[in-house]
Amino acid sequence: MYSDLWIEERFEDFLGLRLKVEKVLFSGKSEFQTVDVVETKGHGKMLLNDGLIMVTERDEFAYHDMITHVPMFVHPNPKNVLIIGGGDGGTAREVIRHSSVEKCVMVEIDGMVVDACKEHIPQTASALNNPKVELIIGDGVKYVKESDIKFDVILVDSTDPIGPAAPLFGSEFYGDVFNCLTDNGIVVSQGESSWYAMDIQKSLLNVLNEQFQNTYLYSFSNLTYPGGLWSFTFASKSLDPLKDFAMSRVEKSGLEFDYYNKELHTACFSLPNFARKGLKGLIQNA
Amino acid sequence: MYSDLWIEERFEDFLGLRLKVEKVLFSGKSEFQTVDVVETKGHGKMLLNDGLIMVTERDEFAYHDMITHVPMFVHPNPKNVLIIGGGDGGTAREVIRHSSVEKCVMVEIDGMVVDACKEHIPQTASALNNPKVELIIGDGVKYVKESDIKFDVILVDSTDPIGPAAPLFGSEFYGDVFNCLTDNGIVVSQGESSWYAMDIQKSLLNVLNEQFQNTYLYSFSNLTYPGGLWSFTFASKSLDPLKDFAMSRVEKSGLEFDYYNKELHTACFSLPNFARKGLKGLIQNA
Repeated sequence: MYSDLWIEERFEDFLGLRLKVEKVLFSGKSEFQTVDVVETKGHGKMLLNDGLIMVTERDEFAYHDMITHVPMFVHPNPKNVLIIGGGDGGTAREVIRHSSVEKCVMVEIDGMVVDACKEHIPQTASALNNPKVELIIGDGVKYVKESDIKFDVILVDSTDPIGPAAPLFGSEFYGDVFNCLTDNGIVVSQGESSWYAMDIQKSLLNVLNEQFQNTYLYSFSNLTYPGGLWSFTFASKSLDPLKDFAMSRVEKSGLEFDYYNKELHTACFSLPNFARKGLKGLIQNA
Repeated sequence: MYSDLWIEERFEDFLGLRLKVEKVLFSGKSEFQTVDVVETKGHGKMLLNDGLIMVTERDEFAYHDMITHVPMFVHPNPKNVLIIGGGDGGTAREVIRHSSVEKCVMVEIDGMVVDACKEHIPQTASALNNPKVELIIGDGVKYVKESDIKFDVILVDSTDPIGPAAPLFGSEFYGDVFNCLTDNGIVVSQGESSWYAMDIQKSLLNVLNEQFQNTYLYSFSNLTYPGGLWSFTFASKSLDPLKDFAMSRVEKSGLEFDYYNKELHTACFSLPNFARKGLKGLIQNA
């Protein structure tokens, strides 16, 4: 019935990214957002929240490698990891590959995202059945406010700062994140694109700088997000993502990746000048 | 009259990138291709050849910085530079910023591209009036076959390997390029995207390896090309882009850039693992 079905993601009023859809696998409306899973041509299965592309099977490894392995190889011994968001499961999948990890708590606000991915995108969601993963369907903002567990690494795997993810870009949330981190804890957050969304980057970095001694931004390539050159923020109480990183840790882990590698760990902090200039004073690598 | 005008660039049959157009400034059909210049919303003026996006004012600096300054800061004293293609003028603009350059020959097959850019996109084309630039409207393939000038750096600033640019990806052309280079000459070529066009990358690298001792691929972010993570190939008779590079050269030049910087010079050769795996044996940085 879908003779020529395309999904278009609009960015502001001047850009559209269109992807060919073979079949709609799931469409629902949760308390928080619309949730769709489609089979695309060329990009495998794809998750959309409120019509925005979250994950495709073709390139999800780039995002999930880079949100996870950069902080996990800076921290000398990450045992307890908290993921806020990350409903597709890809981040949890990468976290539990690290043998030091004893517990990975994941707090996703929207159970419909998790259920849809478990049913239709096992490539990312299968890790959610691992006994090391404690999945909580609930509000991450409330969780970090009330939790008395201290985490070594917190990964804020959120959507854009609209809808349910808006509080995840605010001061109050990061004050609570700070309190949930161990003394050498690290928080890495979805950091938008310097090409199109530097205003959001600046706002997030200002919030992080209220709490954290070290603040960096690092980049990676995302096929299906507007701007392509996407980023994560890295903030920590004491650990430096470059000086406290050793390539030997990656080698000793025995892990192999499709995107991350030990040279790229350092290289991804070398930003183009337009990003450096725009973020000067807000990050240590500008 | 253009109440809701958009341009869509299709990639294969599963991807489309749409950009909002405010006004069509020029549309022509040359002996080689269609040539359009449009005023976009959000990306400034944009050049399209055969409907494919070549350059936008918003992000052209990324491409032009990276095709030019990587080889120009590896070569110790580039005096004579040859550009094949590059009709918009942006590459020539960056080449002549280097004080060592005495002559920049640019051989562009399509005079209509040059004329359209001179009239409508002075941001890139104004450099073409500089006395150090010798602009030849002609066939670059023929030029390198017949020229007896030796160049220090050759930049192949071409479109995709279809239409007039197809021979620029072939063995015969690169045999002639080799002969047109000095003993420590470097050739850098538009290298497509590892995400979507690794087959073209492999083919080009195989051709380069027939001639050159050193072959590398380096990456940068292009906003408006499908795949985002775009690349250039670096091939040379003797110079190594990493070992023969010194940050001090960039510092001494006094030049400032919007994309390139001395740390990024090295970082851009650190490729993600999927690119390394796919190009293993073809480049020295895989």
